[in-house]
Amino acid sequence: MRDGCVQVGILGLGVVGGGLYQILQGNAEQIQRVAGVGIEVAAACDIDWEHPRDFSVPEALKTTDASGVINDPDIDIIVESIGGISPALDYVTAAIKAGKSVVTPNKEMISKHGEHLLALAAAHGVDIQFEGSVGGVIPILRSLKETLASARIDEIIGIVNGTTNYILTRMSEEGADFAPVLAAAQAEGYAEAEPTDDIEGIDAANKLAILAALAFGQRISVEGIHHEGIAQVTPADIDYASRMGYVIKLLAIGKREGEELELRVHPALLPADHPLAAVRGVFNAIFLRGPECGEVMLYGRGAGALPTGTAVAGDVIDCARNIAHGSRGRAPCTCEGEARLRPMGEVQTSAYVRMQVADQPGVLGQIATVLGSENVSIQSVIQESSRDDVAEIVWVMHRGPERNLQAALRAIQDLAVIKQIPSMIRVVQ
Amino acid sequence: MRDGCVQVGILGLGVVGGGLYQILQGNAEQIQRVAGVGIEVAAACDIDWEHPRDFSVPEALKTTDASGVINDPDIDIIVESIGGISPALDYVTAAIKAGKSVVTPNKEMISKHGEHLLALAAAHGVDIQFEGSVGGVIPILRSLKETLASARIDEIIGIVNGTTNYILTRMSEEGADFAPVLAAAQAEGYAEAEPTDDIEGIDAANKLAILAALAFGQRISVEGIHHEGIAQVTPADIDYASRMGYVIKLLAIGKREGEELELRVHPALLPADHPLAAVRGVFNAIFLRGPECGEVMLYGRGAGALPTGTAVAGDVIDCARNIAHGSRGRAPCTCEGEARLRPMGEVQTSAYVRMQVADQPGVLGQIATVLGSENVSIQSVIQESSRDDVAEIVWVMHRGPERNLQAALRAIQDLAVIKQIPSMIRVVQ
Repeated sequence: MRDGCVQVGILGLGVVGGGLYQILQGNAEQIQRVAGVGIEVAAACDIDWEHPRDFSVPEALKTTDASGVINDPDIDIIVESIGGISPALDYVTAAIKAGKSVVTPNKEMISKHGEHLLALAAAHGVDIQFEGSVGGVIPILRSLKETLASARIDEIIGIVNGTTNYILTRMSEEGADFAPVLAAAQAEGYAEAEPTDDIEGIDAANKLAILAALAFGQRISVEGIHHEGIAQVTPADIDYASRMGYVIKLLAIGKREGEELELRVHPALLPADHPLAAVRGVFNAIFLRGPECGEVMLYGRGAGALPTGTAVAGDVIDCARNIAHGSRGRAPCTCEGEARLRPMGEVQTSAYVRMQVADQPGVLGQIATVLGSENVSIQSVIQESSRDDVAEIVWVMHRGPERNLQAALRAIQDLAVIKQIPSMIRVVQ
Repeated sequence: MRDGCVQVGILGLGVVGGGLYQILQGNAEQIQRVAGVGIEVAAACDIDWEHPRDFSVPEALKTTDASGVINDPDIDIIVESIGGISPALDYVTAAIKAGKSVVTPNKEMISKHGEHLLALAAAHGVDIQFEGSVGGVIPILRSLKETLASARIDEIIGIVNGTTNYILTRMSEEGADFAPVLAAAQAEGYAEAEPTDDIEGIDAANKLAILAALAFGQRISVEGIHHEGIAQVTPADIDYASRMGYVIKLLAIGKREGEELELRVHPALLPADHPLAAVRGVFNAIFLRGPECGEVMLYGRGAGALPTGTAVAGDVIDCARNIAHGSRGRAPCTCEGEARLRPMGEVQTSAYVRMQVADQPGVLGQIATVLGSENVSIQSVIQESSRDDVAEIVWVMHRGPERNLQAALRAIQDLAVIKQIPSMIRVVQ
């Protein structure tokens, strides 16, 4: 504290750190009123002050010395907005050990090291908050910890990656292929130059690990989350899905199944009247279901300087209230143990499968026989008129163990009549 | 506190109080884990214990003596789930004066007496929380006070009355008239026997007063909120709206307009692709917009024992954490003054107007001339083929002062060619 105001040190003045800085400066009066205590930026630390920014930071606040910020005795709250594991994890660890509360939107660090960091924060009597790590401005983590804290959550489905939702939305609305839409998204700044983490569902898996830990009250190993990306989704699939009353979204899915949790990230056919189906472009949304709360959905911008900066500022305000009221550690980790994750093969799934086959008699029967022998039950099938002696068959399977489906697809792949199986996309009801 | 547990007294074991009771008992283990302290129901007070309930309360907890509960020195938190003003307000006032934190889902009491009660709670160093008063389980108030606390909110649009949304949804999906759908809703328990507060927008106005106070940080007189109900909406209007790409919803609208606030409740045509347009049946949703947070929407069940009980339980957990950490009064009232409400005549509105007119030459011109003379600008007009010498004209007006529109409609009403003007419904973009 200095002059009766809580002092904040920001590590990393990139997109989110910059957004937070602008909000703390621009809305200082409102923030003081709602927090009940003034909140000042005491230091802004970045390794690159030459990088052009669309806001200016007074020279007196600028530094490149993270250790100096972390160890400044006047500073109460450290915001880590660098991203990634190194050096963010070392800085956050040092900050907690120095008795600072920490706010971070770093999903990778929290999903991989959250358990350790929350325990460390509890041991040092400080707060660690990470609302900005999932869904940007969407107040999902705090709602799980507070308004919905008494409720049993049985299911959580999220659209938590804006890049892939933007790409799928454009593919859907323009009938365009994945690759050119990705290139356009990169040119427009909606996708990273190195898009693997987004496209492959890794970013969404990190977020799901955090969401599931809070929703189900269990610690999650992100390594145990099955994830698939969207690169295989084609306009043809989107079109078939639409004709059957579905949209295709990259979903992060968490469910209680008995004593186990089922956690997975993959593209999915979602009914067009599902509340998540209307989530377009870079927007994110998280849908929950439970016996007490019923269906709840929270929607908003999942990324961007000011939206994510708003969530980070909300955490800073919460930490500041706890500092002002001597109530740090008021809402610590509430996980009651390590989650048992159900292996993907045992998960019950329903799937849409598109096959290209030789246009000759008996093909449908051959395939259906293999499906039956693997106990995969058919819900619907469409065979389209053929082109160049290749017919397209689109199947939707009833719910059953994923293992059976995979075994059936391997066996079908080996049939002589099969040209290729371009798509297998699970169906979520 | 007793045996290290926070003690709760519930006044009113009706729908919401009963839901809370079931949640506190049924999920006690989870609640203790997340709250960091045990929470016990010490007393359940109701005037009618003969009323059949689908849960049982031990005789030792049952009482009819509210004063005894309020003045029990072991009880830390009073939940007021009686509803209405009297005796709820007296009980809450007494509880605060007795040093208890208070949780209430009572929208009427909070919208009319919230300022006084929040000041009283601050003076006595206790908390008063009312998440359940708006949108049932939807974590809107806490999100405004916490995650979105730093953000300037410019606009808030809510579907906050489940009864009217249920009726409008059924009218829309079945092409049915208002009266029979209301009767069906009453028979099914989705509408009260005395439905005026819901149907006339009074319930929504109370909720808007609470929402707006938190979103805009200003105290609101609910008496200043313009409200209209849905009884005049017809299947014909819903059908015209649909053909123009709109749905009809009862909306609670709050906007900043310079130094003033614009607050109103009325049915409105909403674009079919607006995030609120897909909110069906008894569901509620609140949509926000601001320069930092962008567009945010929160969706869920706006009523019902367990959904609203969940929100009330979240407030109880928050109060219990503050009791356990000695941080009561941690998040007090943050309004900075009395709102200046813009009179409805000065509000900028766009309207859909359906007129029945004599089917003769020159009628359209006569009406258009009146509109022009009152400075009401026409966006679109449809004239349908006539029936029994009565033609129907449907106008959509450009945005302009409501006063001009009203003056034009009064003048048009007096034209000899006008049979009637069955509908004027505002358009929200």
